[in-house]
Amino acid sequence: MPRAVAGPEIERLIQLLARLPGLGPRSARRAALHLVRRRADLMEPLTGALGDALEKIVVCGACGNIDTRDPCTVCADNTRDGSMLIVVENVADLWALERAGAASGRYHVLGGTLSPLDGVGPDDLNIETLVQRAHEPAVTEVVLALNATVDGQTTAHYITDLLREAKVKITRLAHGVPIGGELDYLDEGTLSAALRSRTPF
Amino acid sequence: MPRAVAGPEIERLIQLLARLPGLGPRSARRAALHLVRRRADLMEPLTGALGDALEKIVVCGACGNIDTRDPCTVCADNTRDGSMLIVVENVADLWALERAGAASGRYHVLGGTLSPLDGVGPDDLNIETLVQRAHEPAVTEVVLALNATVDGQTTAHYITDLLREAKVKITRLAHGVPIGGELDYLDEGTLSAALRSRTPF
Repeated sequence: MPRAVAGPEIERLIQLLARLPGLGPRSARRAALHLVRRRADLMEPLTGALGDALEKIVVCGACGNIDTRDPCTVCADNTRDGSMLIVVENVADLWALERAGAASGRYHVLGGTLSPLDGVGPDDLNIETLVQRAHEPAVTEVVLALNATVDGQTTAHYITDLLREAKVKITRLAHGVPIGGELDYLDEGTLSAALRSRTPF
Repeated sequence: MPRAVAGPEIERLIQLLARLPGLGPRSARRAALHLVRRRADLMEPLTGALGDALEKIVVCGACGNIDTRDPCTVCADNTRDGSMLIVVENVADLWALERAGAASGRYHVLGGTLSPLDGVGPDDLNIETLVQRAHEPAVTEVVLALNATVDGQTTAHYITDLLREAKVKITRLAHGVPIGGELDYLDEGTLSAALRSRTPF
């Protein structure tokens, strides 16, 4: 058992940093030392930013996005296309679509996918509010931007069934060759899908 | 230019997290989302731990270690061997030696190595206090636990010259085959050093 090197406050900081995704015990130690060395220009601002975020971050009551305002920046943006509702699994996916700048519609964050094996049923997701929003007169299209995994596709089918009554067009993201992708390295499923969905050149 | 997804407070938190070693822009976003999701059991304690550390962390006036007390936990530990002074490049190296539980002496943190190309000269390091400590009557051995790099070895030679007047034995870490290491993968320098320093079996 190695002796304690530093005071309990530092050990505790390291342990908490190690629980961030992407950091392990070793890199958490490096991060803690880096913080201490960059006290004025990193540690103080980070402490402040965490405190700020802790105080202000809320979940958007409309779409489930995380922001410092409710309704969130996306929902409050009146220049967005209110007729398109983009369904995503989680906030990270919403942010990814926004970074791509690809979508101008509004979002709906499910908070996960149906996963019977993990005990995640429809009641654990924001599906009821999705059905309500899909019935709003302004909404004409629901885009299921869910992961192309078994759970994602199961969820997509479940939602499609639920929305049969709503007068909306239901679409999903295209499958195909990623930009920059090489055919030789792609799996058969993607290649078949890309060939089936070929478009005029 | 993608639109802002979340409020400026969240963007700022992500930018600051991205400046930690081991985290990039993408993993910083993941970390921020993880923090928001684990608000009570991670984000609040981490904010508190950072504030605590910010308030209490000091550099030990004797050895240069980072701790919440001065003199630091190591220097204040009277069970340690006061005759051995272990010279390390930085606090991370001190912690590494302590984790190994290998040393029972006291430390001296240089704060870097001599590096003329980067403009790091003797005055930028804690070398003067090292010379003072080496002249204390209690100290009989100075162990140069510096990295086996060009800069580390240059610094070791420089310190050895400076301490010629002090009545202390100057030693360095052994070179050799790392525990668990395979000869086939080792560089020639290490293998030669290991052969030269062979010990009776």
